[in-house]
Amino acid sequence: MTVKFGLLGAGRIGKVHAKAVTGDANAELVAVADAFPAAAQAIADQYGCAVRSIDEIEAAKDIDAVVICTPTDTHADLIERFVKAGKAVFCEKPIDLSLARVKQCLEVVRAHKGTLMVGFNRRFDPHFAAVRAEIDKGTIGDVEMIVITSRDPGAPPVDYIKRSGGIFRDMTIHDFDMARFLLGEEVTEVSATAAVLVDPAIGEAGDFDSVQVLLKTASGKQAMISNSRRATYGYDQRIEVHGSKGAASAENQRPVSIEVATATGYNRPPLHDFFMTRYTEAYAAEIAAFIAAAGGKGAAAPSGEDGLVALALADAAVKSVAEKRTVLVSEVL
Amino acid sequence: MTVKFGLLGAGRIGKVHAKAVTGDANAELVAVADAFPAAAQAIADQYGCAVRSIDEIEAAKDIDAVVICTPTDTHADLIERFVKAGKAVFCEKPIDLSLARVKQCLEVVRAHKGTLMVGFNRRFDPHFAAVRAEIDKGTIGDVEMIVITSRDPGAPPVDYIKRSGGIFRDMTIHDFDMARFLLGEEVTEVSATAAVLVDPAIGEAGDFDSVQVLLKTASGKQAMISNSRRATYGYDQRIEVHGSKGAASAENQRPVSIEVATATGYNRPPLHDFFMTRYTEAYAAEIAAFIAAAGGKGAAAPSGEDGLVALALADAAVKSVAEKRTVLVSEVL
Amino acid sequence: MTVKFGLLGAGRIGKVHAKAVTGDANAELVAVADAFPAAAQAIADQYGCAVRSIDEIEAAKDIDAVVICTPTDTHADLIERFVKAGKAVFCEKPIDLSLARVKQCLEVVRAHKGTLMVGFNRRFDPHFAAVRAEIDKGTIGDVEMIVITSRDPGAPPVDYIKRSGGIFRDMTIHDFDMARFLLGEEVTEVSATAAVLVDPAIGEAGDFDSVQVLLKTASGKQAMISNSRRATYGYDQRIEVHGSKGAASAENQRPVSIEVATATGYNRPPLHDFFMTRYTEAYAAEIAAFIAAAGGKGAAAPSGEDGLVALALADAAVKSVAEKRTVLVSEVL
Amino acid sequence: MTVKFGLLGAGRIGKVHAKAVTGDANAELVAVADAFPAAAQAIADQYGCAVRSIDEIEAAKDIDAVVICTPTDTHADLIERFVKAGKAVFCEKPIDLSLARVKQCLEVVRAHKGTLMVGFNRRFDPHFAAVRAEIDKGTIGDVEMIVITSRDPGAPPVDYIKRSGGIFRDMTIHDFDMARFLLGEEVTEVSATAAVLVDPAIGEAGDFDSVQVLLKTASGKQAMISNSRRATYGYDQRIEVHGSKGAASAENQRPVSIEVATATGYNRPPLHDFFMTRYTEAYAAEIAAFIAAAGGKGAAAPSGEDGLVALALADAAVKSVAEKRTVLVSEVL
Repeated sequence: MTVKFGLLGAGRIGKVHAKAVTGDANAELVAVADAFPAAAQAIADQYGCAVRSIDEIEAAKDIDAVVICTPTDTHADLIERFVKAGKAVFCEKPIDLSLARVKQCLEVVRAHKGTLMVGFNRRFDPHFAAVRAEIDKGTIGDVEMIVITSRDPGAPPVDYIKRSGGIFRDMTIHDFDMARFLLGEEVTEVSATAAVLVDPAIGEAGDFDSVQVLLKTASGKQAMISNSRRATYGYDQRIEVHGSKGAASAENQRPVSIEVATATGYNRPPLHDFFMTRYTEAYAAEIAAFIAAAGGKGAAAPSGEDGLVALALADAAVKSVAEKRTVLVSEVL
Repeated sequence: MTVKFGLLGAGRIGKVHAKAVTGDANAELVAVADAFPAAAQAIADQYGCAVRSIDEIEAAKDIDAVVICTPTDTHADLIERFVKAGKAVFCEKPIDLSLARVKQCLEVVRAHKGTLMVGFNRRFDPHFAAVRAEIDKGTIGDVEMIVITSRDPGAPPVDYIKRSGGIFRDMTIHDFDMARFLLGEEVTEVSATAAVLVDPAIGEAGDFDSVQVLLKTASGKQAMISNSRRATYGYDQRIEVHGSKGAASAENQRPVSIEVATATGYNRPPLHDFFMTRYTEAYAAEIAAFIAAAGGKGAAAPSGEDGLVALALADAAVKSVAEKRTVLVSEVL
Repeated sequence: MTVKFGLLGAGRIGKVHAKAVTGDANAELVAVADAFPAAAQAIADQYGCAVRSIDEIEAAKDIDAVVICTPTDTHADLIERFVKAGKAVFCEKPIDLSLARVKQCLEVVRAHKGTLMVGFNRRFDPHFAAVRAEIDKGTIGDVEMIVITSRDPGAPPVDYIKRSGGIFRDMTIHDFDMARFLLGEEVTEVSATAAVLVDPAIGEAGDFDSVQVLLKTASGKQAMISNSRRATYGYDQRIEVHGSKGAASAENQRPVSIEVATATGYNRPPLHDFFMTRYTEAYAAEIAAFIAAAGGKGAAAPSGEDGLVALALADAAVKSVAEKRTVLVSEVL
Repeated sequence: MTVKFGLLGAGRIGKVHAKAVTGDANAELVAVADAFPAAAQAIADQYGCAVRSIDEIEAAKDIDAVVICTPTDTHADLIERFVKAGKAVFCEKPIDLSLARVKQCLEVVRAHKGTLMVGFNRRFDPHFAAVRAEIDKGTIGDVEMIVITSRDPGAPPVDYIKRSGGIFRDMTIHDFDMARFLLGEEVTEVSATAAVLVDPAIGEAGDFDSVQVLLKTASGKQAMISNSRRATYGYDQRIEVHGSKGAASAENQRPVSIEVATATGYNRPPLHDFFMTRYTEAYAAEIAAFIAAAGGKGAAAPSGEDGLVALALADAAVKSVAEKRTVLVSEVL
């Protein structure tokens, strides 16, 4: 069965998903909608699909599933509308910046037995997925301590920062999800530190650019996260899981893996400098997983609940920084 | 301008090129031909092109360029036919197993001012190309000594071996081309050793499975090649260039780059186990280069002459093993 | 000038320092004392020095400096005695498990203008020292975020644990010192999590075996530490410093650095499995630095104050775990 | 039993061995001789041994073993004299530059049932030894193809070159021995290429500075060697063994193993720049093995015959370059 898609939002990430959908033998991109007609038309021209309004896609009989890549503040509404319309829904993270709104939205999804998958693309990175597979195989025994390093090549514009919900909800949220994906047990406690070291303008916008987080589960499993909005050497994305029998780690990826030796030493090129080239394979695998779920093969994961819990961890981190204390997840969720 | 393609040969490598052509925005796959109609039809179905005979493609007004992926013994004839028909020609290596026949064929290409590119895909591997770029930038000074390690995961069937022209013409030929690509000066002398260590059946077929070659240029630049038809750990493909100011190397590639540490040590997964997954990017970049050349943007490289010289080095290696001596390239070319 | 040494304590670490002292051209080992005469005699026999009592060493005219390797609860008393006796003092960490006692002891050292160096050997590891040198050279710009991973191959006996002051004062204290060594600014805030994951007996002894710590300075520089009392793959000791212009890291060390590739992948041997083989070079360099300081060339560093502050960070971590909050260093120091 | 040593030659390598002998609990350095009294005295002062003449050492009752570090042209004579005097003999490579003289010398050793060990220190490098151990354990199956890369940081003075016997006998000889150590079967055929790329003065002295060698055994096992007298990035010493079940390799060693990431990429420091720092552990292990053999525990290996065969391979390489052909070892040995 071919899953027929509508794409909502034709921006940067919309293009990534358009490519993934059209490149998948089990899917067909039927229509695209965007507030800017030219953006929608560009995708329509490239992939031979129709330009339609969101209303038209909602009403369409020839569309089974939608990918939501519109601005964050429209996500929850669109999820509710399209679940009600009987479409399978893939939504970019986050569902909303308000936990209350996310909970409300997930109520609607549950009420309509909807299919909802949230875009935590990193779970589908082949290297991170391979680390998880080693855990599942038991190679490293019981998971005990996780270290996640996640640094962006550069900070986004301050305008973006202002609408982002802050670094914990915008950037660390991926690491919260990754920690949950690997810990195999729910996080119960969150401690965090935060500072502005990269750009004072980020501080003036009320946000931080350099943060650290400690997570702990009920049984004592622990994870720590180091985030910075700047890394001169590229997009720094590493995870390491230490267990009772060993450890598994996924190293950084670079577009070209050569080494040049001269009198000053041995030099390897910088890392990928952009999340889209770093996670090319992850985006394709993510959409393939959604296509399978939309086609009735397996549950949609990461689920709306995964989106909810990751946001709760972000809220707990915000609170931990503000109140200089360990915050129980049960306080915010 | 879109370059319109005919594909001759719908086997394993034909499929690779069909994917590359259809994935390139500057190309269109118009038709495919194969002695086995079902093979051609499978590609036609997948990419929405026509099935035609070779004669039809030769006569077609709507085809600008062909990709020749038919058996080796048809290459030279097809090159001549399609060059005469005014099509740009991309031909898988080798042009022919006979140097004399290759020379004759290239005469025809020259006489018709044809565009001919030969499929030495490794030049287009991003990692090997980056090594070459470092040489061109002068980072490592003058090239002096090259080491090429090239080992297949496993030997091909003996039937294939029998028709292959032998390991030097079938397998080492890629390394001869790579050495030429990196040396920046023509090879003048060849010394080789050869043995059967992997499979006695290969020896019974008159071939070797484990060989070493030394190359030398007039100015004394040197290269050495180590080949084996077997590597339990995957498709082993490394180059290293030592120069007056430093060295540049391209390491092996693996599908998943994690590391697992246990009481027995630190383990990384095996390499790619198949040339098609190892060289996915190289095949796409190779066809992109041909599309550019076919579209009039730049010369076709590697050229027919590159194919000729690599074959001559293979012939010299065969002779070196047989006569236990250093063979001058001028003796065979 | 040759610095003449008395060694107090002939146990495991005493032997390490005896070797370092006798191997240094600027030092001479004159005498050794130990509560167990046989232990002292073994060192005397091996290195040709005398066995003396602590009192005799204190009174000796032919001894300039002492190395204190006796049990922790004797450190502060011995420091005071030997500083009063005019000897330069090298003392293994910690000075004492009580901050108050350490402060008192340092008062005595100051009053007598004594030379006191504390045994934070890792500062002298050539790899960690090279990371610090890169910071000092400005290669990575301003230090912003540090990640320290420190895991022992296996837990010490529970009897040791009980006398150790707990994991933060016994094990993490090295990482606290390393963080201070690299941050270049005093830590003002400490947050920690802790659990028993390795051995329930450690929990029964009132200690933890798996801990995480976040550190922060007044200007917002941050460090995080991951500790475990167990690592099947060896003695895991890594540091990574992220700065405004780049990052510097020191990787793990192994006794033998080969790689073996088979059908199951590429395997490198485990790490060092013992701190003495891991830090062989560090111990020698540490004593060389003390010999220089004792001989009047340069200040003794790490100093008694460095020992004091590292212990204060440990106390803050203990408090943070107990009270589930961020602890200001000013609360404990 | 303590083995009592006389050291013949107090130059650079003599100092290395003096340190190894005095650092070994089973040996004692009794006396040192050198044509330059000041050189001998320096070692005597440092290690507390006597200065004696070679004649006195030969006649001494209190000396069991000698280490010969004098100029090459004295080696064979001294071996004969000291074997006749009943001393165990360790001699730096080569025994002599003339195969005939080496054979004659070994006759004398055999006639007197002497103990002779030749200084191929690399066999004792822990990393190379670990590769050999993997072969012995069967991890990589039957050895099939070896690649040895060996490059000096810089060329020696031309005066040294002139007396050296040429690059094959002076430098490649270590790689010939390493190939034999790893192949597990005698080499029967040698092919080589050679050029002057580093320094024309080396060519004017009748030598080469950049060479390649192919080796082959009767059963078809093969090895290849790449040598250069220059490597800007340090002392480049790598071996790789490919077998029927896998491969084992020993990578380069560097004094400090950090990595610094900046906008231009990831940089590791250069390699060791001197054979003495690179092979510190090897020199100590080599002398320990000789002490064991001199003390009657095990045979002396590498033996005089190992020295002979490595020299024969060098002679065959010289002949191969001169005659542009594969040379059988049986032609020269």
